[in-house]
Order: sequence, then structure tokens, then C-alpha cells
Amino acid sequence: MAPLAATATLFPCKCSIGREPDASLPLKPNKNMVKINGNSATRVEVATAVASMTPPIGMRGVDEELAVLPKSFRQNIPTKKQTTDSYRQGVLILGGVGYRQTVVIRSYEVGADKTATLDTFLNLFQETALNHVWMSGLLGDGFGATHGMIKNNLIWVVSRMQVQVDSYPIWGEVVEIDTWVGASGKNGMRRDWLIQSQRTGHIFARATSTWVMMNQNTRRLSKMPEEVRAEISPWFIDKKAIKEDVTDKIIKLNDAATYINSGLKPKRSDLDMNNHVNNVKYVGWMLETIPESFLETHQLSSIVLEYRRECGSSDVVESRCEPDENPKPEGESVDLFGGYPLAPQILEGHGILGPFHAWPLSYTHLLQIKGETKNEEIVRGRTTWRKKFSIIPFSS
Amino acid sequence: MAPLAATATLFPCKCSIGREPDASLPLKPNKNMVKINGNSATRVEVATAVASMTPPIGMRGVDEELAVLPKSFRQNIPTKKQTTDSYRQGVLILGGVGYRQTVVIRSYEVGADKTATLDTFLNLFQETALNHVWMSGLLGDGFGATHGMIKNNLIWVVSRMQVQVDSYPIWGEVVEIDTWVGASGKNGMRRDWLIQSQRTGHIFARATSTWVMMNQNTRRLSKMPEEVRAEISPWFIDKKAIKEDVTDKIIKLNDAATYINSGLKPKRSDLDMNNHVNNVKYVGWMLETIPESFLETHQLSSIVLEYRRECGSSDVVESRCEPDENPKPEGESVDLFGGYPLAPQILEGHGILGPFHAWPLSYTHLLQIKGETKNEEIVRGRTTWRKKFSIIPFSS
Repeated sequence: MAPLAATATLFPCKCSIGREPDASLPLKPNKNMVKINGNSATRVEVATAVASMTPPIGMRGVDEELAVLPKSFRQNIPTKKQTTDSYRQGVLILGGVGYRQTVVIRSYEVGADKTATLDTFLNLFQETALNHVWMSGLLGDGFGATHGMIKNNLIWVVSRMQVQVDSYPIWGEVVEIDTWVGASGKNGMRRDWLIQSQRTGHIFARATSTWVMMNQNTRRLSKMPEEVRAEISPWFIDKKAIKEDVTDKIIKLNDAATYINSGLKPKRSDLDMNNHVNNVKYVGWMLETIPESFLETHQLSSIVLEYRRECGSSDVVESRCEPDENPKPEGESVDLFGGYPLAPQILEGHGILGPFHAWPLSYTHLLQIKGETKNEEIVRGRTTWRKKFSIIPFSS
Repeated sequence: MAPLAATATLFPCKCSIGREPDASLPLKPNKNMVKINGNSATRVEVATAVASMTPPIGMRGVDEELAVLPKSFRQNIPTKKQTTDSYRQGVLILGGVGYRQTVVIRSYEVGADKTATLDTFLNLFQETALNHVWMSGLLGDGFGATHGMIKNNLIWVVSRMQVQVDSYPIWGEVVEIDTWVGASGKNGMRRDWLIQSQRTGHIFARATSTWVMMNQNTRRLSKMPEEVRAEISPWFIDKKAIKEDVTDKIIKLNDAATYINSGLKPKRSDLDMNNHVNNVKYVGWMLETIPESFLETHQLSSIVLEYRRECGSSDVVESRCEPDENPKPEGESVDLFGGYPLAPQILEGHGILGPFHAWPLSYTHLLQIKGETKNEEIVRGRTTWRKKFSIIPFSS
């Protein structure tokens, strides 16, 4: 049998990146790629130690007795490739190298408009990526690293993430989430996702991300060891969820940004099992900096994130946001009624949408840690938006 | 065939309760029962209007075209009783009146210790309750109300909730969540839950809740109309998840409370599809008021919540918290190693747990809206806790 491969990834493990660039390191799969620093890594060390205690499948009975113990390992990690996972409704696709999971959008995964939130998408991306690795039989520490990576003290760090949303599935919708991986430069990995309607095949959202390996002791980016390449490269395919990947570098916002939220502090519940602030929280901080009245009338159509540095539980974060100058393209119309575009003046005047402010439809974002002497970037972002249509209620 | 019944419930719909008691209303299923007020109900009216637009199953195709439209109805609501739901892995149990759903604990549903959070339990309680009603064939507006309730302009409001946690399932654990309903007094309904290991049957958590009906126009509590009783009473069974229900009234904390968090403001993402602050957020605000160092070393073993009033998106909330006076029972020991209790001095001295503060193990809570002239109670709570065992990492 060919070597089994794990294709790792997880959002929470953004880990310490940024600060001191290391010129000796040739790793440049992407010009926006993360840089390197020399932080210590207490938290990750703890995680690894716990991982090394992972028991074989079937040891659950003992564990049952220890109600007071945190059960610090994922249950039932297979040591061989699995083709189906009935409990998670997962199955290998794309000739056995991709993963598809069927999920129903739950009542608490939707917002006030009863459609899935962006948070839900990001959560499901993380979940399906980890389940993909789980199916591969090579999941070691539960955070997406392969056995070869663990042997080499390597962890995955995400450097870039892009999501395009066509529409948001509603509460109760059955969706299929496909995910697969490919090469990114010489030492990186790309992971893509598609979210589609199980019934109609309509694609709700597409996403792509770039990952590199970091030595968890030195906190430096690492080349991909041959041992790890042998594990994961059999899973690589040349297939892109997003055809035209946006690669323009996101500008760094300065303190003249139009909207600034300061003093943002992670709460206990914002920390994931890596004890880092979860990626979903980052996006929340970014989007909450946009004015409320805009968020009420618009929905996100795309987001690009460039990760620079992790955010720990004691950091105080500032979120900056700058709208684009051009409020909206000329003659824009919205396709509301099955292919019949309405003229902008109907939509935007005193017509069915009522009068509203002409907001810009794209924003640049920056999250940074406010330090005493200098600030440190966590993540830069770009978002684009489209107008929401408001249903005017009938009296029943 | 016997009349089909829906058994409603949902946490988000705590709705406007409290303030002006109405002496004319004989409804007293519980001495801590919610009171009545005369608020207007714009949000709920909108919800109902949307509900009245709910299309029959199979109209999805049209909807697919309207990417910009919020899809404001739950998909595929059955009009007849269903016995299985393959996508949600749900099945009717207890002779066809209870509901069981099998779920896998996801990577983003666990905390830093890789076990499911209390939030996850509360979310799954809401989800399974709504899916239970969905299976009944009587779900009307998607918020848990039956057709008879909608006809009578009635919605469910929760007055009380109690959760007991024996232990928390780990990431990847397959759990079965059972839920069923029963009578509570003459006009109320009880809904219970059990969360158990699919593999071993070990019961992780038990919960019970009490619900009453409110007229959404008058905002007054309502008797259960005969029409609604005929729908739901065939689903009632006399089975209790928690044998000894705690019924002691929770005292109201005054401004001398030891811990107070003020200025808490709901964010957009804290609002559910009812445009109310979600119940899970309430619990978050309560627990975050307990000191961090306590939360790091303890896990919640039970919570009781008494709901008084809804919290809207513009309210500013204060969370008060008071520890019990008695720090801990004498001679307490913790059963860590499969039935071999360790002496307290080993656990609490400089032994495996290291030195730590002797914290009280129960707390009283209050969430209230800070008004200009007076405060209004949202919810009172009681929590009990047990010590966590900390794994000291080995170097690998």
C-alpha cells in the first residue's frame, strides 16, 4: 500500500510568527508569507506532551472513571486510512485523496436572518480539515500534524486564507463540504474547500488557504522534510476552489484609520485547545469594527486574511478598519427576482429597500497587539460586501 | 392516527418577561415562574410574518436564485410525524414520543482542555429540542411553536433551566442526546435532556427546563388552549432526567456582591434569529464574572437558571456574582485513579496539583439590565463546581 498521508491544518494553530525575518531561510512560497521569530513555546510544548500520551483506540473505559480529569486527547484516532466515517457523515472523494462531509446547518449556527454565519463557515472549514487528516490515518497529536511532523517537532502554521461567499445556507439546509490539499511552492501546502447544497449542488462558498511548517522549539519556519513530503505529497492534487486567487498584498493601516476598536481582550471562551485566540475570534474583531448600520444592511461576499503573529490569552488587541474610497461602482444593480435585475434607483431610492446610505463595499483591516514600545501585527484583512435585501413583513 | 404533537422549546425565545405581575392570571406551575409585562413585540411580529411565508417543501429551487435575499425560513419542515432523520442522525425513542440525536463533539466545540464546553451542551440542547419538534410534524414557525400555538398567537418562554454535569465528553466523542417532554403544572411543559456516551452509555450530563406560553401581542402569559393541549399532551411522559430537582429559590444579589462586571453589551454575533441575546451568552456573562484563577482550576458541575426578562440588542447588562461562604467540605478527596481516592493533603498541598487557593465551590449569580431609574433582572443563577486535575506534561 502506498504511504498514507495526513494533510493537516487547523486554524487555531496560527502560532508565533512575525517579527524577526531570518534571511538564511529560503522559504518563500508566497510573497506575503509569514516570517520567523524566536519566541519560546511553552503552550505548544504542553500540547505535544499531551499528544504523546494519546492512548490507542479502545482505552476509553479507563478514562470513563476519571470524571475529574480533563480528557486531553481526541478519541478513536485511526492508524490506517479510512474511506468512510459514518458518525461524521464523512467520505473520501476525488479518487480517495479529498474529503467530503455532509452537515446540517444547526439552529445556533445561524444569525438573526436565519442564514449560516461566516463564523460557521470558518468553524466547519477547521472541522473538516481535521477530519480529513483523521481519515488519512496519520493524525498524530490531534492538531493536524502527521507522525513525520511530530517526529521532526513540526507544526502547521497558516499564512493566508481566502473565502468567497456566493450565498449563505439557511437553517436546516443540508450542505456538503469538500476539502483537499495541494502543493504551495516547494515547502508549503494549499488547502481548499467548497460548501455546496446537498440537494441542488449550488455552491455557497469557496475557500483556499496556505500553510507552512514551523519548528515548535526554535519557532522558525522549516523546509518540508523528505519524510513528511513522502507522507503528504500522495494526497496533493492540482485543483483550485477559487479560480482567480487574489494575491495583491494588503496594505498596513496606520493610526489614521477611519474606524478603530481598542482594548480588545480575549476571553477564556475565545481560546481554543491550543490556548491561542481562535481564528474565528480574529474575524469577529475585524468585522465588529465596521459600523453597525453597514453590517445590518450588507452581507460579506469575500474575505482575505494574511496572518503575521499569534495572539495569546493576555494580549490586548486593537482592530483598525478603513473603507475603500469609491462608494460603489456606477450603475450597479442587484439581481433579486430570478434573473430580472432591478434598476439601482428602485433599489436605492425610496423603493423596496427604502432610503439608505451609500456605503463603500470593501474594507481593509488590521489587528495588532498594542505593546508598550511598539505594536505587533496579528493579521491583515480585506473584506468585500454586497447589499442585503430586507423582507418587509406582511401582517398575517 | 392520534393527533400529532409538537413539543416546542427553544432557548433563544426567552422573550419579554418580568416586571408587572398580573394578579388575574392563575398560572403558577412553579413558584419562581416568570411574570408578565406589557411590552410591544415588534421583533416577534416580524418573525411571525416571515413564518407565515414559509413555503412548502420543494420550493428551494426558486430560493436558489435569490442569493441576496435572506432565506428566512427553515428548510424542509415536515407536515407529518417522522420517525428518523438520517442527515441529523435523529430517531424517535421512548415509544415514539422522545427524540435521540447522535452527534460527534467537534474541534471547535471544545475548550483549551479539549473537552466540550458548557456552551456546547446548551447549544446542543436547543438544537435537539427544535429537531424533536421538527420530527413531530407540527413545527410551524421554526421557533418551536406548534400550528395551534401560531393560530393562537402564542410563543414558548423558558422560565427555568437546570443542568448537572458528571463529566465533559472529549473532542471526537460520539454522544447521544435524548430529549423528551412532560407536563409542568396545568399550563406548563417540562423538557428534559440526557447526554450519554454512544459507546459506553456513560451519562455525561442531565438537564431539565420549564416552559410556559406567552401571547406575543399582549406579552402576557397564557393558559394552554385546549387546541394546543390536544397537540402536545400525547407527547408528554412522566420521566425525569434529574431525580432530585433543586427548587430552592435563588436569592437576589444586591450591589454588595463580591464580583461585579458592568457595561456588558451584546454584540451582533450574540443575537440569535429571534434578535434576542442568546441564552448561551447569558451563561457566558455569568461565568466570566468568577475570578479567572478559579475558572482555570475548576469545572462546572451544575447550574440552575431562573429567567425573568429578555435582553435586547441595545441593553447594557451588569453581572453580579457572590461565592458561598463555606470554602469546601471537610476531608474532601478527589477520585482520580479508578476508584482510589487520594488524600486531600496530596492533592492540595505541594503534591500533584501544586499549591492552590481554597476556593468556595458554589456561587450565586445575577444578570440585570442597568436602567436610568431602576435595574431589571434578566436571570438569576446558581453554579456549583469541582476541582480540575491538571496534567503535568512529560517531555517527549
